[in-house]
Amino acid sequence: MADPVLDGLIDALRCLPGVGQKSAQRMAFHLLQHDRAGAVKLAQALQTAVDDIGHCQRCHTFSRQAICDVCLDPDRDPHLLCVVETPADQAALERTGSYKGLYFVLMGRLSPLDGVGARDIGVGALMERVSDGLVEEVILATNFTAEGEATAHVLGEQLKARGLKVTRLARGVPVGSELEYVDLGTIAHAFMDRR
Amino acid sequence: MADPVLDGLIDALRCLPGVGQKSAQRMAFHLLQHDRAGAVKLAQALQTAVDDIGHCQRCHTFSRQAICDVCLDPDRDPHLLCVVETPADQAALERTGSYKGLYFVLMGRLSPLDGVGARDIGVGALMERVSDGLVEEVILATNFTAEGEATAHVLGEQLKARGLKVTRLARGVPVGSELEYVDLGTIAHAFMDRR
Repeated sequence: MADPVLDGLIDALRCLPGVGQKSAQRMAFHLLQHDRAGAVKLAQALQTAVDDIGHCQRCHTFSRQAICDVCLDPDRDPHLLCVVETPADQAALERTGSYKGLYFVLMGRLSPLDGVGARDIGVGALMERVSDGLVEEVILATNFTAEGEATAHVLGEQLKARGLKVTRLARGVPVGSELEYVDLGTIAHAFMDRR
Repeated sequence: MADPVLDGLIDALRCLPGVGQKSAQRMAFHLLQHDRAGAVKLAQALQTAVDDIGHCQRCHTFSRQAICDVCLDPDRDPHLLCVVETPADQAALERTGSYKGLYFVLMGRLSPLDGVGARDIGVGALMERVSDGLVEEVILATNFTAEGEATAHVLGEQLKARGLKVTRLARGVPVGSELEYVDLGTIAHAFMDRR
């Protein structure tokens, strides 16, 4: 157990979010005992990703090219820009197939308690992005959490000051849900935004 | 998000125990966004560990040499052999500083439901190990779980059949605990093994 190589692996695994000493140890033992092929594959995938993946200069999502495929797509509506927190959020919206505009990925959210301010989530880059003379409406699709709402509020104020139309995804009762089990805040919003 | 390199990383991270699609995605985004140095370090640590770490030929624990340092230590009592499930268990015993014999690490436990049988945990290698003419007492220090107890029982029967003295770590009330909060099974064992 006092092996520096094994200890080094356990230590390195702790760079993963949510992985502490015990989990890292369990992971190291599992890989060495049961899945060495997986460990080699992971090592290569990490190195390749770090070498190849940067950020799209226009929308800030992860991309291997200077401009990502979505931003380059001529079939996308350049007048619409949807702002999301993460690439995972963007992927969720893309899966619906109901949006054909462009994106801006913040790669985070305002979180003063964690020391994440406007600069960290690229607000300046967003303001530059919306000044391309094409964007007319910015759809704020940050999460409906306290931090996501705060981010949307701050961004909305700045975007409106530039004369842009700013919208937010509708809040309401999820499709397929029974009212009895929907939380009060959601029902209250669904009442307010009834149509 | 349809980037094959990014998807490859997310997929590779799923080889880690307890990591599903969502966690893998979160880990990949975290590494690429906030800790590329950590990702490179992890890639190197994985490769080095897979290349360098094998198993000690005598005690089966992870080792970079054919025989590990503990097995080579001339100050260890060769008449005592302590059987543990994992290197982590061995490390826990070593930290106490109260044991000066040698070890055998099963690298697992009998678990018929998971398809882990006697061959998978190296029972044959253990039987060979105890036939060195030096081992007199085998201390079964498998965990006090259902599977650990079953493993100890099976090993104990075979070791006794070879005329070896077989012991098990004492069960009882943990040091520093209040009786009110100790479970019934533990108290019952503490009564039986009172001294």
